[in-house]
Amino acid sequence: MTIQEPVTARPAGRPRSEKAERAIIEATLDLVGDGMGVAELSIEAIASRAGVGKTTIYRRWSNKEELVADALATLKAPLPPLGGESVRDDLITLLRAMREDKGRSRTRCVMNVMMSDADRYPALMERFQKVAIEPRKEAMREVLRRGIRTGELRADLEVEMGLAILSGTMIWYTKWAPPGDLPADLPERIVDHVLPGFAA
Amino acid sequence: MTIQEPVTARPAGRPRSEKAERAIIEATLDLVGDGMGVAELSIEAIASRAGVGKTTIYRRWSNKEELVADALATLKAPLPPLGGESVRDDLITLLRAMREDKGRSRTRCVMNVMMSDADRYPALMERFQKVAIEPRKEAMREVLRRGIRTGELRADLEVEMGLAILSGTMIWYTKWAPPGDLPADLPERIVDHVLPGFAA
Repeated sequence: MTIQEPVTARPAGRPRSEKAERAIIEATLDLVGDGMGVAELSIEAIASRAGVGKTTIYRRWSNKEELVADALATLKAPLPPLGGESVRDDLITLLRAMREDKGRSRTRCVMNVMMSDADRYPALMERFQKVAIEPRKEAMREVLRRGIRTGELRADLEVEMGLAILSGTMIWYTKWAPPGDLPADLPERIVDHVLPGFAA
Repeated sequence: MTIQEPVTARPAGRPRSEKAERAIIEATLDLVGDGMGVAELSIEAIASRAGVGKTTIYRRWSNKEELVADALATLKAPLPPLGGESVRDDLITLLRAMREDKGRSRTRCVMNVMMSDADRYPALMERFQKVAIEPRKEAMREVLRRGIRTGELRADLEVEMGLAILSGTMIWYTKWAPPGDLPADLPERIVDHVLPGFAA
Protein backbone atom coordinates (compact mmCIF):
# COMPACT_ATOMS: atom_id res chain seq x y z
CA MET A 1 0.00 0.00 0.00
CA THR A 2 1.58 3.29 -1.07
CA ILE A 3 0.24 6.76 -0.59
CA GLN A 4 -0.52 8.84 -3.66
CA GLU A 5 1.49 11.88 -2.73
CA PRO A 6 5.06 13.14 -3.14
CA VAL A 7 7.46 11.72 -0.59
CA THR A 8 9.70 14.77 -0.42
CA ALA A 9 7.22 17.61 -0.06
CA ARG A 10 4.68 17.62 2.74
CA PRO A 11 1.94 20.16 2.01
CA ALA A 12 0.79 22.45 4.77
CA GLY A 13 -2.29 21.20 6.60
CA ARG A 14 -1.28 17.64 5.91
CA PRO A 15 1.01 16.79 8.79
CA ARG A 16 2.86 13.53 9.16
CA SER A 17 0.25 12.23 11.60
CA GLU A 18 -2.49 12.66 9.02
CA LYS A 19 -0.41 10.81 6.46
CA ALA A 20 0.10 7.97 8.91
CA GLU A 21 -3.61 7.97 9.69
CA ARG A 22 -4.45 7.63 6.02
CA ALA A 23 -1.95 4.76 5.66
CA ILE A 24 -3.48 3.00 8.67
CA ILE A 25 -7.00 3.38 7.27
CA GLU A 26 -5.89 2.11 3.85
CA ALA A 27 -4.09 -0.85 5.39
CA THR A 28 -7.22 -1.75 7.36
CA LEU A 29 -9.42 -1.57 4.27
CA ASP A 30 -6.91 -3.58 2.24
CA LEU A 31 -6.82 -6.36 4.83
CA VAL A 32 -10.61 -6.49 5.10
CA GLY A 33 -10.83 -6.32 1.30
CA ASP A 34 -8.54 -9.35 1.14
CA GLY A 35 -11.26 -11.21 3.04
CA MET A 36 -9.95 -10.88 6.57
CA GLY A 37 -12.75 -10.80 9.13
CA VAL A 38 -12.63 -8.61 12.22
CA ALA A 39 -11.67 -11.58 14.38
CA GLU A 40 -8.55 -12.30 12.33
CA LEU A 41 -7.61 -8.66 11.91
CA SER A 42 -4.95 -7.53 14.39
CA ILE A 43 -3.43 -4.17 15.21
CA GLU A 44 -0.06 -5.85 14.53
CA ALA A 45 -1.07 -6.81 10.99
CA ILE A 46 -2.47 -3.34 10.29
CA ALA A 47 0.64 -1.62 11.65
CA SER A 48 2.88 -3.85 9.58
CA ARG A 49 0.90 -3.26 6.38
CA ALA A 50 0.76 0.48 7.01
CA GLY A 51 4.46 0.69 7.81
CA VAL A 52 3.85 2.32 11.21
CA GLY A 53 4.36 1.28 14.79
CA LYS A 54 1.51 -0.06 16.91
CA THR A 55 1.77 2.95 19.23
CA THR A 56 0.97 5.22 16.28
CA ILE A 57 -2.30 3.36 15.91
CA TYR A 58 -3.09 3.31 19.62
CA ARG A 59 -2.42 7.04 19.83
CA ARG A 60 -5.44 7.57 17.59
CA TRP A 61 -7.75 4.58 18.19
CA SER A 62 -8.26 2.83 21.47
CA ASN A 63 -9.12 -0.51 19.88
CA LYS A 64 -9.55 -2.45 16.67
CA GLU A 65 -13.32 -1.94 16.44
CA GLU A 66 -13.03 1.86 16.53
CA LEU A 67 -10.40 1.78 13.81
CA VAL A 68 -12.41 -0.53 11.56
CA ALA A 69 -15.55 1.59 11.99
CA ASP A 70 -13.67 4.76 11.02
CA ALA A 71 -12.00 2.99 8.10
CA LEU A 72 -15.38 1.85 6.78
CA ALA A 73 -16.78 5.35 7.17
CA THR A 74 -14.14 6.70 4.76
CA LEU A 75 -15.65 4.52 2.00
CA LYS A 76 -18.80 6.64 1.99
CA ALA A 77 -19.22 9.34 -0.62
CA PRO A 78 -19.43 12.77 1.07
CA LEU A 79 -22.91 14.03 1.83
CA PRO A 80 -23.91 16.04 -1.25
CA PRO A 81 -25.16 19.63 -1.00
CA LEU A 82 -28.93 19.88 -1.47
CA GLY A 83 -30.82 22.57 -3.36
CA GLY A 84 -33.46 22.74 -0.64
CA GLU A 85 -36.29 23.56 -3.01
CA SER A 86 -37.74 20.54 -4.78
CA VAL A 87 -38.25 17.37 -2.75
CA ARG A 88 -37.85 15.37 -5.94
CA ASP A 89 -34.47 16.92 -6.82
CA ASP A 90 -33.07 16.53 -3.32
CA LEU A 91 -34.15 12.88 -3.04
CA ILE A 92 -32.54 12.14 -6.41
CA THR A 93 -29.31 13.78 -5.24
CA LEU A 94 -29.27 11.68 -2.07
CA LEU A 95 -29.99 8.43 -3.94
CA ARG A 96 -27.21 9.27 -6.41
CA ALA A 97 -24.76 9.56 -3.53
CA MET A 98 -25.92 6.18 -2.21
CA ARG A 99 -25.36 4.60 -5.59
CA GLU A 100 -21.90 6.12 -5.80
CA ASP A 101 -20.99 4.44 -2.51
CA LYS A 102 -22.19 1.03 -3.45
CA GLY A 103 -20.98 1.07 -7.02
CA ARG A 104 -17.31 0.85 -6.09
CA SER A 105 -16.23 -2.76 -6.07
CA ARG A 106 -13.84 -2.26 -3.17
CA THR A 107 -16.65 -0.81 -1.08
CA ARG A 108 -18.96 -3.70 -1.98
CA CYS A 109 -16.32 -6.24 -1.12
CA VAL A 110 -15.33 -4.66 2.19
CA MET A 111 -18.94 -4.09 3.21
CA ASN A 112 -19.86 -7.70 2.44
CA VAL A 113 -17.09 -8.94 4.69
CA MET A 114 -18.11 -6.54 7.43
CA MET A 115 -21.81 -7.32 7.31
CA SER A 116 -21.00 -10.96 7.99
CA ASP A 117 -19.37 -9.86 11.21
CA ALA A 118 -21.96 -7.30 12.21
CA ASP A 119 -23.76 -9.43 14.77
CA ARG A 120 -20.50 -10.26 16.52
CA TYR A 121 -19.18 -6.71 16.81
CA PRO A 122 -21.99 -4.51 18.08
CA ALA A 123 -19.64 -1.73 19.26
CA LEU A 124 -18.07 -1.53 15.81
CA MET A 125 -21.42 -1.40 14.08
CA GLU A 126 -22.78 1.14 16.52
CA ARG A 127 -19.88 3.49 15.85
CA PHE A 128 -20.16 2.94 12.10
CA GLN A 129 -23.88 3.63 12.24
CA LYS A 130 -23.29 6.85 14.14
CA VAL A 131 -20.39 8.16 12.06
CA ALA A 132 -21.35 6.98 8.58
CA ILE A 133 -24.99 5.98 8.31
CA GLU A 134 -27.00 8.17 10.64
CA PRO A 135 -26.03 11.56 9.08
CA ARG A 136 -27.11 10.24 5.65
CA LYS A 137 -30.40 8.90 6.96
CA GLU A 138 -31.05 12.17 8.73
CA ALA A 139 -30.45 14.17 5.54
CA MET A 140 -33.14 12.14 3.77
CA ARG A 141 -35.56 12.38 6.70
CA GLU A 142 -35.10 16.14 6.69
CA VAL A 143 -36.03 16.39 2.99
CA LEU A 144 -39.19 14.38 3.67
CA ARG A 145 -40.06 16.45 6.74
CA ARG A 146 -39.60 19.63 4.73
CA GLY A 147 -41.94 18.25 2.05
CA ILE A 148 -44.59 17.57 4.68
CA ARG A 149 -44.19 21.08 6.12
CA THR A 150 -44.51 22.76 2.73
CA GLY A 151 -47.50 20.60 1.83
CA GLU A 152 -45.67 18.97 -1.09
CA LEU A 153 -46.04 15.59 0.70
CA ARG A 154 -48.99 13.98 2.53
CA ALA A 155 -49.33 15.12 6.12
CA ASP A 156 -49.73 11.50 7.25
CA LEU A 157 -46.57 10.27 5.49
CA GLU A 158 -44.44 8.26 7.93
CA VAL A 159 -40.98 9.77 7.54
CA GLU A 160 -39.22 6.62 8.71
CA MET A 161 -41.21 4.55 6.22
CA GLY A 162 -40.36 7.01 3.44
CA LEU A 163 -36.68 6.62 4.28
CA ALA A 164 -37.02 2.83 4.27
CA ILE A 165 -38.76 2.77 0.89
CA LEU A 166 -36.30 5.05 -0.89
CA SER A 167 -33.11 3.68 0.67
CA GLY A 168 -34.26 0.07 0.67
CA THR A 169 -35.04 0.23 -3.04
CA MET A 170 -31.62 1.67 -3.89
CA ILE A 171 -29.92 -0.99 -1.75
CA TRP A 172 -31.97 -3.69 -3.47
CA TYR A 173 -30.51 -2.61 -6.82
CA THR A 174 -26.95 -2.00 -5.67
CA LYS A 175 -26.86 -5.24 -3.70
CA TRP A 176 -28.26 -7.56 -6.35
CA ALA A 177 -27.32 -6.03 -9.68
CA PRO A 178 -23.71 -5.97 -10.93
CA PRO A 179 -22.56 -2.35 -10.52
CA GLY A 180 -22.08 -1.78 -14.27
CA ASP A 181 -25.67 -2.75 -14.93
CA LEU A 182 -27.33 -0.01 -12.91
CA PRO A 183 -29.11 2.37 -15.30
CA ALA A 184 -27.83 5.95 -15.18
CA ASP A 185 -31.29 7.29 -14.37
CA LEU A 186 -32.04 4.78 -11.59
CA PRO A 187 -32.35 7.45 -8.84
CA GLU A 188 -34.86 9.39 -10.96
CA ARG A 189 -36.87 6.27 -11.74
CA ILE A 190 -37.02 5.21 -8.11
CA VAL A 191 -38.18 8.65 -7.00
CA ASP A 192 -40.75 8.86 -9.80
CA HIS A 193 -42.26 5.50 -8.82
CA VAL A 194 -42.32 6.30 -5.12
CA LEU A 195 -43.11 10.01 -4.88
CA PRO A 196 -46.65 9.88 -6.35
CA GLY A 197 -47.57 7.69 -3.37
CA PHE A 198 -46.13 10.27 -0.96
CA ALA A 199 -47.62 13.35 -2.61
CA ALA A 200 -50.30 15.39 -0.87
CA MET B 1 -27.37 -31.91 16.24
CA THR B 2 -30.26 -34.31 16.80
CA ILE B 3 -33.24 -34.89 14.59
CA GLN B 4 -36.68 -34.15 16.03
CA GLU B 5 -38.26 -37.48 15.32
CA PRO B 6 -38.56 -40.89 16.99
CA VAL B 7 -35.52 -43.06 16.46
CA THR B 8 -37.39 -46.37 16.46
CA ALA B 9 -40.27 -45.69 14.07
CA ARG B 10 -39.64 -44.55 10.52
CA PRO B 11 -42.84 -43.15 9.01
CA ALA B 12 -43.85 -44.11 5.49
CA GLY B 13 -42.72 -41.58 2.90
CA ARG B 14 -39.76 -40.68 5.02
CA PRO B 15 -37.13 -43.22 4.03
CA ARG B 16 -33.73 -43.43 5.63
CA SER B 17 -32.15 -41.45 2.78
CA GLU B 18 -34.45 -38.51 3.42
CA LYS B 19 -33.58 -38.59 7.10
CA ALA B 20 -29.88 -38.57 6.24
CA GLU B 21 -30.48 -35.71 3.83
CA ARG B 22 -32.15 -33.70 6.56
CA ALA B 23 -29.25 -34.42 8.95
CA ILE B 24 -26.75 -33.32 6.30
CA ILE B 25 -28.66 -30.08 5.66
CA GLU B 26 -28.91 -29.37 9.39
CA ALA B 27 -25.21 -30.07 9.91
CA THR B 28 -24.36 -27.67 7.08
CA LEU B 29 -26.54 -24.93 8.54
CA ASP B 30 -25.14 -25.51 12.02
CA LEU B 31 -21.57 -25.16 10.82
CA VAL B 32 -22.34 -22.00 8.85
CA GLY B 33 -24.33 -20.70 11.80
CA ASP B 34 -21.25 -21.22 13.97
CA GLY B 35 -19.51 -18.74 11.71
CA MET B 36 -17.77 -21.09 9.31
CA GLY B 37 -17.36 -19.58 5.85
CA VAL B 38 -17.71 -21.63 2.68
CA ALA B 39 -13.92 -21.80 2.28
CA GLU B 40 -13.46 -23.45 5.69
CA LEU B 41 -16.48 -25.72 5.35
CA SER B 42 -15.55 -29.23 4.22
CA ILE B 43 -17.60 -32.26 3.21
CA GLU B 44 -15.64 -34.13 5.90
CA ALA B 45 -16.76 -31.75 8.63
CA ILE B 46 -20.38 -31.87 7.45
CA ALA B 47 -20.36 -35.68 7.26
CA SER B 48 -18.89 -35.91 10.73
CA ARG B 49 -21.41 -33.49 12.23
CA ALA B 50 -24.31 -35.22 10.47
CA GLY B 51 -23.13 -38.69 11.50
CA VAL B 52 -23.06 -39.98 7.91
CA GLY B 53 -20.33 -41.08 5.54
CA LYS B 54 -18.96 -38.76 2.86
CA THR B 55 -20.33 -41.04 0.15
CA THR B 56 -23.86 -40.44 1.46
CA ILE B 57 -23.31 -36.75 0.81
CA TYR B 58 -21.73 -37.23 -2.62
CA ARG B 59 -24.60 -39.50 -3.65
CA ARG B 60 -26.90 -36.49 -3.40
CA TRP B 61 -24.70 -33.42 -4.03
CA SER B 62 -21.79 -33.27 -6.45
CA ASN B 63 -19.97 -30.57 -4.48
CA LYS B 64 -19.98 -28.32 -1.45
CA GLU B 65 -21.50 -25.33 -3.21
CA GLU B 66 -24.58 -27.27 -4.33
CA LEU B 67 -25.11 -28.59 -0.83
CA VAL B 68 -24.75 -25.17 0.78
CA ALA B 69 -27.17 -23.59 -1.73
CA ASP B 70 -29.79 -26.26 -1.02
CA ALA B 71 -29.25 -25.95 2.72
CA LEU B 72 -29.80 -22.20 2.56
CA ALA B 73 -32.94 -22.69 0.47
CA THR B 74 -34.51 -24.75 3.30
CA LEU B 75 -34.39 -21.64 5.51
CA LYS B 76 -37.01 -19.94 3.37
CA ALA B 77 -40.63 -19.95 4.47
CA PRO B 78 -42.78 -21.80 1.91
CA LEU B 79 -44.38 -19.63 -0.77
CA PRO B 80 -47.80 -18.74 0.66
CA PRO B 81 -51.03 -19.34 -1.28
CA LEU B 82 -52.45 -16.13 -2.75
CA GLY B 83 -56.10 -15.13 -2.96
CA GLY B 84 -55.64 -13.84 -6.51
CA GLU B 85 -58.21 -11.07 -6.17
CA SER B 86 -56.88 -7.97 -4.44
CA VAL B 87 -53.38 -6.79 -5.35
CA ARG B 88 -53.11 -5.22 -1.91
CA ASP B 89 -53.95 -8.47 -0.07
CA ASP B 90 -51.58 -10.58 -2.15
CA LEU B 91 -48.68 -8.17 -1.75
CA ILE B 92 -49.22 -8.12 2.01
CA THR B 93 -49.22 -11.93 2.06
CA LEU B 94 -45.93 -12.04 0.15
CA LEU B 95 -44.27 -9.43 2.37
CA ARG B 96 -45.44 -11.35 5.46
CA ALA B 97 -43.68 -14.46 4.16
CA MET B 98 -40.50 -12.40 3.59
CA ARG B 99 -40.63 -11.12 7.15
CA GLU B 100 -41.10 -14.63 8.47
CA ASP B 101 -37.89 -15.70 6.71
CA LYS B 102 -35.78 -12.89 7.98
CA GLY B 103 -37.19 -12.81 11.47
CA ARG B 104 -35.59 -16.08 12.52
CA SER B 105 -32.27 -15.42 14.17
CA ARG B 106 -30.68 -18.55 12.76
CA THR B 107 -31.64 -17.49 9.26
CA ARG B 108 -30.25 -14.00 9.82
CA CYS B 109 -27.03 -15.38 11.16
CA VAL B 110 -26.51 -17.94 8.41
CA MET B 111 -27.46 -15.48 5.68
CA ASN B 112 -25.03 -12.88 7.01
CA VAL B 113 -22.19 -15.37 6.87
CA MET B 114 -23.17 -16.43 3.38
CA MET B 115 -23.55 -12.95 1.97
CA SER B 116 -19.96 -12.22 2.92
CA ASP B 117 -18.91 -15.12 0.70
CA ALA B 118 -21.28 -14.38 -2.15
CA ASP B 119 -18.74 -12.75 -4.45
CA ARG B 120 -16.35 -15.65 -4.09
CA TYR B 121 -18.87 -18.42 -4.82
CA PRO B 122 -20.85 -17.44 -7.89
CA ALA B 123 -22.03 -21.00 -8.60
CA LEU B 124 -23.40 -21.31 -5.09
CA MET B 125 -25.22 -18.00 -5.29
CA GLU B 126 -26.55 -18.77 -8.74
CA ARG B 127 -28.09 -22.02 -7.53
CA PHE B 128 -29.46 -20.35 -4.42
CA GLN B 129 -30.98 -17.57 -6.52
CA LYS B 130 -32.62 -20.09 -8.80
CA VAL B 131 -33.94 -22.45 -6.12
CA ALA B 132 -34.84 -20.01 -3.36
CA ILE B 133 -35.08 -16.43 -4.56
CA GLU B 134 -36.35 -16.44 -8.11
CA PRO B 135 -39.69 -18.25 -7.43
CA ARG B 136 -40.48 -15.69 -4.71
CA LYS B 137 -39.61 -12.73 -6.92
CA GLU B 138 -41.68 -14.19 -9.73
CA ALA B 139 -44.72 -14.57 -7.44
CA MET B 140 -44.55 -10.86 -6.63
CA ARG B 141 -44.00 -9.85 -10.26
CA GLU B 142 -47.06 -11.89 -11.21
CA VAL B 143 -49.26 -10.05 -8.69
CA LEU B 144 -48.06 -6.71 -10.12
CA ARG B 145 -48.58 -7.86 -13.73
CA ARG B 146 -52.09 -9.02 -12.86
CA GLY B 147 -52.80 -5.60 -11.32
CA ILE B 148 -51.67 -3.90 -14.52
CA ARG B 149 -53.85 -6.25 -16.63
CA THR B 150 -56.94 -5.64 -14.54
CA GLY B 151 -56.36 -1.88 -14.52
CA GLU B 152 -55.87 -1.79 -10.75
CA LEU B 153 -52.29 -0.55 -11.33
CA ARG B 154 -50.83 2.04 -13.73
CA ALA B 155 -50.19 0.69 -17.20
CA ASP B 156 -46.70 2.26 -17.16
CA LEU B 157 -45.68 0.71 -13.83
CA GLU B 158 -42.27 -0.96 -14.20
CA VAL B 159 -42.83 -4.41 -12.70
CA GLU B 160 -39.16 -4.87 -11.83
CA MET B 161 -39.12 -1.50 -10.07
CA GLY B 162 -42.28 -2.41 -8.15
CA LEU B 163 -40.60 -5.61 -6.99
CA ALA B 164 -37.50 -3.66 -5.94
CA ILE B 165 -39.51 -1.09 -3.98
CA LEU B 166 -41.63 -3.60 -2.06
CA SER B 167 -38.91 -6.17 -1.40
CA GLY B 168 -36.16 -3.61 -0.81
CA THR B 169 -38.27 -1.86 1.83
CA MET B 170 -38.98 -5.10 3.68
CA ILE B 171 -35.30 -6.05 3.59
CA TRP B 172 -34.37 -2.60 4.87
CA TYR B 173 -36.49 -3.24 7.98
CA THR B 174 -35.54 -6.87 8.53
CA LYS B 175 -31.86 -6.15 7.99
CA TRP B 176 -31.53 -3.12 10.23
CA ALA B 177 -34.16 -3.52 12.92
CA PRO B 178 -33.84 -6.17 15.63
CA PRO B 179 -36.38 -8.88 14.69
CA GLY B 180 -38.50 -8.37 17.81
CA ASP B 181 -38.95 -4.72 16.97
CA LEU B 182 -40.74 -5.14 13.67
CA PRO B 183 -44.33 -3.93 14.04
CA ALA B 184 -46.95 -6.61 13.41
CA ASP B 185 -48.60 -4.54 10.68
CA LEU B 186 -45.37 -3.69 8.85
CA PRO B 187 -46.38 -5.45 5.59
CA GLU B 188 -49.69 -3.53 5.53
CA ARG B 189 -47.95 -0.22 6.20
CA ILE B 190 -45.37 -0.78 3.48
CA VAL B 191 -48.04 -1.66 0.94
CA ASP B 192 -50.21 1.29 1.96
CA HIS B 193 -47.33 3.73 1.50
CA VAL B 194 -46.26 2.25 -1.84
CA LEU B 195 -49.46 1.22 -3.58
CA PRO B 196 -50.98 4.72 -4.01
CA GLY B 197 -47.97 5.51 -6.21
CA PHE B 198 -48.62 2.40 -8.31
CA ALA B 199 -52.38 2.81 -8.65
CA ALA B 200 -53.99 3.62 -11.98
